[in-house]
Amino acid sequence: MKRSVFFISDGTGITAETLGHSLLTQFDKVQFEAITIPYIDTLEKAKSTVAKINSCAKKEGQRPIIFSTLVNPKIRSLVEKSHGLFLDFFKTFLVSLEKELNIAPTPHVGRMHGLVDYKSYMMRIEAVNYALSHDDGLRPQNYDQSDLILVGVSRCGKTPTCLYLALQFGLFAANYPFTEDDINNANLPTGLLPYKSKLFGLSIDPKRLHLIRQERRPNSRYSSLEQCQLEVRKAEDFFKANKIPFLSTTTRSIEEIATSLIATLGIKRQLGDMEHH
Amino acid sequence: MKRSVFFISDGTGITAETLGHSLLTQFDKVQFEAITIPYIDTLEKAKSTVAKINSCAKKEGQRPIIFSTLVNPKIRSLVEKSHGLFLDFFKTFLVSLEKELNIAPTPHVGRMHGLVDYKSYMMRIEAVNYALSHDDGLRPQNYDQSDLILVGVSRCGKTPTCLYLALQFGLFAANYPFTEDDINNANLPTGLLPYKSKLFGLSIDPKRLHLIRQERRPNSRYSSLEQCQLEVRKAEDFFKANKIPFLSTTTRSIEEIATSLIATLGIKRQLGDMEHH
Repeated sequence: MKRSVFFISDGTGITAETLGHSLLTQFDKVQFEAITIPYIDTLEKAKSTVAKINSCAKKEGQRPIIFSTLVNPKIRSLVEKSHGLFLDFFKTFLVSLEKELNIAPTPHVGRMHGLVDYKSYMMRIEAVNYALSHDDGLRPQNYDQSDLILVGVSRCGKTPTCLYLALQFGLFAANYPFTEDDINNANLPTGLLPYKSKLFGLSIDPKRLHLIRQERRPNSRYSSLEQCQLEVRKAEDFFKANKIPFLSTTTRSIEEIATSLIATLGIKRQLGDMEHH
Repeated sequence: MKRSVFFISDGTGITAETLGHSLLTQFDKVQFEAITIPYIDTLEKAKSTVAKINSCAKKEGQRPIIFSTLVNPKIRSLVEKSHGLFLDFFKTFLVSLEKELNIAPTPHVGRMHGLVDYKSYMMRIEAVNYALSHDDGLRPQNYDQSDLILVGVSRCGKTPTCLYLALQFGLFAANYPFTEDDINNANLPTGLLPYKSKLFGLSIDPKRLHLIRQERRPNSRYSSLEQCQLEVRKAEDFFKANKIPFLSTTTRSIEEIATSLIATLGIKRQLGDMEHH
C-alpha cells in the first residue's frame, strides 16, 4: 500500500512535517511518499501547488494526503480545493482559540519562524558558540556560565546533545568526557565539584559504543568490546556513587535525551525560537 | 490579558510546543504563560497532570489552554476531562486518516521520537561530526562527501546553520569562510571549483555583522562598521559574479535559512529523525 503525502506551509514546513510524521507512523502498513512544499506565500505559488497535487491524484488514481499549516485564509482556501485529503493543522484550532479567548486573531505569516527578535537569535547563536567552545572538556573555568554539563565516556552522545540543546532551547551546555583516571577515582574531579547540581550523565549500551568506536578507530583497544564494557560499567558506578542523574542514550533519540535531562535537572524549558511554523 | 497554556505529550512535547506556539503568536494581545509536561505515559502521571491543570483553572478563575499530542486513548480521555480547553493535535486527524486509508492505526507511543533505527541515528551523528570537522574551511579535501557548502564572510551565521542542517535533516554541510583575498579575487578559489553546484552563500546586513563582531573583538578593524560594509558588499558582488545563490541571514531564523537553501539547491528533504512527537 502506497500513498503520496504533501506537507504544505507558508513558512518553513517543519511543523507540518513533524506533526504529520507522528500521525503517519501510526499506519505502519502504508508506505508514504512525502513531499514538502514550503514558503507558499502567494496565490501563484498556491496555484502551482494545487496543480502538483491534482496531477499526483490523477496519476495515482487516489487522493494524496495534505498536511497544511497555511495561515493565510485566501491561500489556504485555494489549496483546500485541490483533489487531496486536506488536513488543516491551523484553522481547526484557531477557531477554537478565537472563541475561548474572545478576540480575533491577527494573522502573522511573516512572523512564523521569522527572526523578529535580535536578542532571541543571539541567544541561540551564543548557545551554539558556548557548546562548541566547551565541548570535550574545554575551558572548565567557564562552567559557572553553563546551564548544564554533560558527563560520560567518549562517544556516548554528549556533543550532539549539547548542540541540540543550544539550537532548540538556547541552553548553555558544556560537556566533559571521563578519562580512565576520572572513573577509576571514586570522587568527582575537583574541577567539577562546584557544579555538581548541573551535572547529568550519559551512558550507553557497551555493544553500541563498541560499534560507534569501531567506525572511528577500528580494532584498537579504545574500540574493543572489553574496553567499552569496562568504561561503561565504571562510569555508571561513578554516577551512582556520586548521585549524578543519568540515562542511557542507546534507545533514545537526541530529542528524548535533551527533553528528559531538562525535566530531570528542573531547567525551565523555553524554545530557542518561539515562533516556529 | 493573561492565559496559562499546557503542552502535554506522551513523548518529548516538542511537536505540541511547536504547533502551539504558531497558533498562540496569532493572538499577540494575550500574554501566555506556558508549561510543557512531557512523557505522560502512565495513568498516574495523567492524573497528576489533571490535578495541576485543575488547580491552575481554580486559581486563575479561567480555563487553561491545553495542547495535546497524547497518543494513548486512555491517557488522552483522562486529560480531556480536566478543566481546560483541550485542543487535540492527534485524534482529530487520526480519525480522518483512518477513514481515508481504510485501515486501523496501530498506536506507537514508544516509537515517537524513539531511537528505533540505528542507521538513522548514526546518520545524524555522522552529519554532526561532518559539520564539526568541516567547519570554518577545515578539510576541503573531503568536500566531495558534502551535500552542500556554505560560503560567506566571518560571523554571518554559517556554523549554526550547518549544525542545524545536520541535526534536523542529517545533511553533510561544510562551510568555508571568505578571506579578504578570496573576495578581492573575482574568481572562485580553485579548491571550491569542482563543487560549484553545492555552494550556497550567506550574507548579512553590515550593521548586524558589526554588532555581532563587536561582541567578539570590540573596537577592532575586524568589527568596524566600515570593514563589515566592505566585506559584505564584496561578498555579494562575488556571489553574483559567480552565480552562487545566496540569501541574507539578517531577518531569517536558522530554520528559514536551512529550509530555503535546501529548496534552492534542490536537495531532497528528509527528517533526520522521522518520528518526532
